[in-house]
Amino acid sequence: MNNAFNQRMLNVRLSPIVAISEEVRRRSPQFTKETGKPFILFQRGEIDYPTPKFIIDAAKNALDAGYTKYPKSGGEEVLKDAILQKLKQYNRLEGLSRNNIVCTYGGQEALQLAFTLFAGKRGAGFAPCWSCVLENFVPYSGVDFVEVPLNQDFSINVDLLEAVLKDVTFFYFNTPHNPTGKIFSEEEVRTVIDLCTRHNVFVISDEAYERIVYDGKEFFSPTSLGQENILGAFTFSKSFSMTGWRLGYLVACDPDIAKLVRLGDYTQTAGVVTFLQHAGKEALENTDAANAALSAMRTDYERRRDALFTGISAIPGVEVTRPQGGFYLFPNFSQLIPDDLDKKQRSLYIYEKLLSRGVATVYGSCFGRHFVDNIRLSFSTTPLPAIQEGIDRIHAACASEHGEG
Amino acid sequence: MNNAFNQRMLNVRLSPIVAISEEVRRRSPQFTKETGKPFILFQRGEIDYPTPKFIIDAAKNALDAGYTKYPKSGGEEVLKDAILQKLKQYNRLEGLSRNNIVCTYGGQEALQLAFTLFAGKRGAGFAPCWSCVLENFVPYSGVDFVEVPLNQDFSINVDLLEAVLKDVTFFYFNTPHNPTGKIFSEEEVRTVIDLCTRHNVFVISDEAYERIVYDGKEFFSPTSLGQENILGAFTFSKSFSMTGWRLGYLVACDPDIAKLVRLGDYTQTAGVVTFLQHAGKEALENTDAANAALSAMRTDYERRRDALFTGISAIPGVEVTRPQGGFYLFPNFSQLIPDDLDKKQRSLYIYEKLLSRGVATVYGSCFGRHFVDNIRLSFSTTPLPAIQEGIDRIHAACASEHGEG
Repeated sequence: MNNAFNQRMLNVRLSPIVAISEEVRRRSPQFTKETGKPFILFQRGEIDYPTPKFIIDAAKNALDAGYTKYPKSGGEEVLKDAILQKLKQYNRLEGLSRNNIVCTYGGQEALQLAFTLFAGKRGAGFAPCWSCVLENFVPYSGVDFVEVPLNQDFSINVDLLEAVLKDVTFFYFNTPHNPTGKIFSEEEVRTVIDLCTRHNVFVISDEAYERIVYDGKEFFSPTSLGQENILGAFTFSKSFSMTGWRLGYLVACDPDIAKLVRLGDYTQTAGVVTFLQHAGKEALENTDAANAALSAMRTDYERRRDALFTGISAIPGVEVTRPQGGFYLFPNFSQLIPDDLDKKQRSLYIYEKLLSRGVATVYGSCFGRHFVDNIRLSFSTTPLPAIQEGIDRIHAACASEHGEG
Repeated sequence: MNNAFNQRMLNVRLSPIVAISEEVRRRSPQFTKETGKPFILFQRGEIDYPTPKFIIDAAKNALDAGYTKYPKSGGEEVLKDAILQKLKQYNRLEGLSRNNIVCTYGGQEALQLAFTLFAGKRGAGFAPCWSCVLENFVPYSGVDFVEVPLNQDFSINVDLLEAVLKDVTFFYFNTPHNPTGKIFSEEEVRTVIDLCTRHNVFVISDEAYERIVYDGKEFFSPTSLGQENILGAFTFSKSFSMTGWRLGYLVACDPDIAKLVRLGDYTQTAGVVTFLQHAGKEALENTDAANAALSAMRTDYERRRDALFTGISAIPGVEVTRPQGGFYLFPNFSQLIPDDLDKKQRSLYIYEKLLSRGVATVYGSCFGRHFVDNIRLSFSTTPLPAIQEGIDRIHAACASEHGEG
């Protein structure tokens, strides 16, 4: 295209997940016509719970109270104070002030601004890696990004990590982890952060799924370590079913970093919609109502996780690790993929097979170069009966594969 | 600061207008204690009208209807359709489709994304120029920006403009114009756009004040020309008293440009808050309610414009052009500034003098290098009695100057 335009912008693509959803929309009517059954949608990262009423009421009250004027750059004080309180209570992070917080449009803008802060530098992150990092933040900010593969059981290869950290400016660290559902243990988090600190590497800590944890597990927040080289990105989207509200925040123990991010946010948008920030304050401060809503959602999601994990792990030839958080399963199909395929064919083989049986998933190459034999299954919008139907179809597809192979 | 960070981000500054407001907050108590009178605030670009109730109701209804899920990338279809209808009716621009529109966080994000599209290139715009362009968009996108001074009466120096256009990729064009209140005539608009087209220059057309026009004047919209080299940036902020809603849109007759801007918006924020877009649709479609609210505001602002213009133009030694739109006056004080000052002293001389008399304004150097003897007076939050008091204080300050000089 026109060479008048910024090459970095030309390199950005819409998420392949959007393209998958569009393909499903095209193929779905024919599938339903032939089989009388609906497509099973395991590809989406949306949440099927509505935003809790107390948060909607708070937004309405803020509208009535006239909070419709320009926001304060970096965030309204009432929201920042609620965030500081949340960091204290939930993340056990004390001693910060309003100058360490920047309100953003979702965790998305917090992450994009963090990547932009390192524009033109080299960074790294574990593979598999959230597709938006690879398709959007990396090309848009023009960083050079090194994928550090996790082991097949999603444990850390510490030697490999350290070798890469010697040569990068920042490390993108996501826990609970998309697409594997892994929660890095406190020991693993400390290992990663210590290595980064030792090698003067900044950490972009993406904690979007902080509250979506199962089995009564404790989540260990990297940002809770309170180090000046950590930029914590948080969102209201998953914890409060507020995906469409685009509300999030960045936490930087180094106020100079927070100031730069604030200037970036101001330049991009002039700040976050004022009355939405008042609703965000209520979401954080009304902990009884928030916990009740979250607990109901988490219980439901845990049942889905159990059903999906149990069903998929019973399929011969499929390797799968039990997710501890988030709402994704990332099984490996290596044993079921013919050896004679080239890399491109390989990466789409299971995805295509499942799609033809009315099951939408995300193929592994959306998450980088290292886990192309895996697929991601999301259970965030898939009720139990659909999960069961999906498992049956995947089972049948794999059995036919076993038979053929 | 740390050389790990993006130099472009380090170059961005908060608007000097924010710093001015902070200085006023510091000095205001002492002034009021000494004089028993309040500071007169002519520095702000805020609107003192509330958002019309029908728009607030539309936001509430959208919340109740559950429009709280992820937005569609680039904008909801209902809002895009309302924008297309508005472009047809108000801008007389036909033949566009949803692929030509991108919903953004205010005109701000539309402009920032347009500048980012030309990152690293050379651009130009008329001086005086909105401070946010100079302090934010230009450094953040890393463009090289040439200021093309208007003549003292704010007419265009066509030869100078053409000489500059031979050597740039884009031209930033703002009408109605901040800080002068000038509305470029249809003939002037056509001259600028024709020159840009002849020299293969893209136009970023900032039409934020499109509805804030006085004397029953018609505003000629550059975007209405329907050319593929024009990127039109629009906002709901001024037309509908929605500054804190951060709602706007970009119009590009070239759908490839719209697509790039959509990818930029998606990368930065994942799209505009879903239920706000439904409120924006109502603002555009309920034209009776919108026009009634706008008309009341405009009538009030026109009275303020008249009072301020009449008062300031009666001050000996002050040159002032009657604003036709927007809510700013940009008088020149050259005759009242001593000759022996250096450039820095000169640029703050009148500003400081007025500040010491309890009048907050914005000094001319905030709008580039060419109009440092001017100051900007905003009447958007200043009711008539305060305007009168402000004029009296400015008059007294200038008279003392005349006496001294």
